[in-house]
Amino acid sequence: MSRYEAVSAPSEVVRAAAAERLAGLATPPGALGRLGDLAVWIAATQSMVPPAPVTHVRTVIFAGDHGVSDHGVSAFPKAITPAMVRTFLMGKAGVSVLAAQHGVSVRVLDLGVDDDLEGVAPEVTRFKVRRGSGAIHLEDALTTDETLQAIAAGETIAAEEIAAGAQLLISGDMGIGNTTPAAALIAASLSLPAMEVTGRGTGIDESALAHKMAVVQQALDRTRERTGDPIDTLTALGSADLAAAAGFMAAAARAGVPVLLDGVISVAAAVMADRLAPGAAAWFAAGHRSTEPAQTLALDKLGLEPILDVGMRLGEGSGAVAAVPLVRSAALLLSDVALLADLM
Amino acid sequence: MSRYEAVSAPSEVVRAAAAERLAGLATPPGALGRLGDLAVWIAATQSMVPPAPVTHVRTVIFAGDHGVSDHGVSAFPKAITPAMVRTFLMGKAGVSVLAAQHGVSVRVLDLGVDDDLEGVAPEVTRFKVRRGSGAIHLEDALTTDETLQAIAAGETIAAEEIAAGAQLLISGDMGIGNTTPAAALIAASLSLPAMEVTGRGTGIDESALAHKMAVVQQALDRTRERTGDPIDTLTALGSADLAAAAGFMAAAARAGVPVLLDGVISVAAAVMADRLAPGAAAWFAAGHRSTEPAQTLALDKLGLEPILDVGMRLGEGSGAVAAVPLVRSAALLLSDVALLADLM
Repeated sequence: MSRYEAVSAPSEVVRAAAAERLAGLATPPGALGRLGDLAVWIAATQSMVPPAPVTHVRTVIFAGDHGVSDHGVSAFPKAITPAMVRTFLMGKAGVSVLAAQHGVSVRVLDLGVDDDLEGVAPEVTRFKVRRGSGAIHLEDALTTDETLQAIAAGETIAAEEIAAGAQLLISGDMGIGNTTPAAALIAASLSLPAMEVTGRGTGIDESALAHKMAVVQQALDRTRERTGDPIDTLTALGSADLAAAAGFMAAAARAGVPVLLDGVISVAAAVMADRLAPGAAAWFAAGHRSTEPAQTLALDKLGLEPILDVGMRLGEGSGAVAAVPLVRSAALLLSDVALLADLM
Repeated sequence: MSRYEAVSAPSEVVRAAAAERLAGLATPPGALGRLGDLAVWIAATQSMVPPAPVTHVRTVIFAGDHGVSDHGVSAFPKAITPAMVRTFLMGKAGVSVLAAQHGVSVRVLDLGVDDDLEGVAPEVTRFKVRRGSGAIHLEDALTTDETLQAIAAGETIAAEEIAAGAQLLISGDMGIGNTTPAAALIAASLSLPAMEVTGRGTGIDESALAHKMAVVQQALDRTRERTGDPIDTLTALGSADLAAAAGFMAAAARAGVPVLLDGVISVAAAVMADRLAPGAAAWFAAGHRSTEPAQTLALDKLGLEPILDVGMRLGEGSGAVAAVPLVRSAALLLSDVALLADLM
């Protein structure tokens, strides 16, 4: 099936040339730390040494509700989801402020919000798959057709963002209850029990956490036979927004456009993208470490080390957007710092 | 003695008001992680809720040589120091590139470079105390008069930068061998042995590291009776650039202007500033964690947690400048994110 075709990694030849330039900068060897590694990666994804400035960064927020939010897994009611969609559109959310600071575009799309979002511009709901996804401990999140529709939507959205000039893409997520399917997708993909992947999300207490673990484990037990295939996994345990984000990232990797990952939702989508398009993860970098345990487990599995580790757990793509200046710094250092040879 | 007068901390009343605003933002409690804490600190230093945007950030690089660099403590010869001063002036060093990215000014000043810097503009050498500081394992770094002159220079420089509109100051350092006096100042101030504070600097090997430890320990043993007083400590174990940086930071704190710290040199100066002006550390934030062990030990002592931890060890103020966008993000989030009350 062509959907599972492997993705080529960024050029090893360019990577080697970038590493050679890095070694020739007028800085002690290794003194740029992770920024040096990041610079080499960016150059390889661009197939260019020195790399071009990373000016055009575009964020897409995939919004959707989750049936599990009616089952005590979140500190907040699902009415917050459409309220936050409106807050993004007003430019007053956390990610909006960070994106404005860094000149990053933000596009919010309703994939599965359990609300008609009356009065909101039609382009926001253009890719809507359904109102709310199924409560994954009791039923599938989506039908197979809905999963394929959401993945295709993500692919189209990536193509549109790339056509608009994106040099780096970020996927954010909004949806009360979203850390539950994200944890389930990671657990199913990494063969981990609920206890290891389940976190506090927006801030639930001890007893709600125990309940959330039980919900995740029930979802894993319910679907155990069907998680060998990524589309089946998204159908059983995902959601419209997560399936779209996975399609978005897989399409970015296929097109050779790097992606900066956010927290556990974004990283769960990245794990699924790497299953839909094996090798896609070579095109991903991790913006930040969130407080969700599943995020760290999945980043380890993908071989990614986060740039920031400042205890953020806001979602919305905010941790990735906060890390954008460092990605830009990395590229600029490799292109603009004097070469030792030029100073001699 | 008026020099050791305590410095008042940023207003607790403003801090409490900032924390209250943070709790009222349309984000889950604690979801901004360290950026929330940083926002509250910035607001308190500004005495303003919400805080003003941190647009005017100014970096001063204190350059100087160290007698120890002739004694096998560094991977590089001291001729690199004046070469790097010229590279800063050309805007082609690592810190120059980061500062240009973030609109941060960089001023390089020769406090004790062991070179006449012929042809360099006179304002660069205006505060020069001497050519090179003493080899601290064999002799004092400075005379008491030179220490006082360097501290006074740092105070004047801070006043100039504040008069130029600085809302946030950064002190960087350039000087081959500089991690040796920095480690010694931290060891003497924290009563630690050389073995715990000595690191690899720009990248020395195992046997050079053992030698460097011996040099630091010899310096500590030589001056043990005199490190109870901060001026005596700087005279015995510091250097012209380190004493000036300490004076610079103490003056910033006295004037109520916050300082973003860089790596081990900057943090050693901060430790000395907090001894010269007890309480000054409440005006400091830590830009990044470097790879030098003394830096982490000193930050713990000062009660500061670094913003970035990306393995940088370039010096020049670069780690602090790399963290500037996050300080700005913190202030912007606290001022621009919607209040939950406004969305209801």
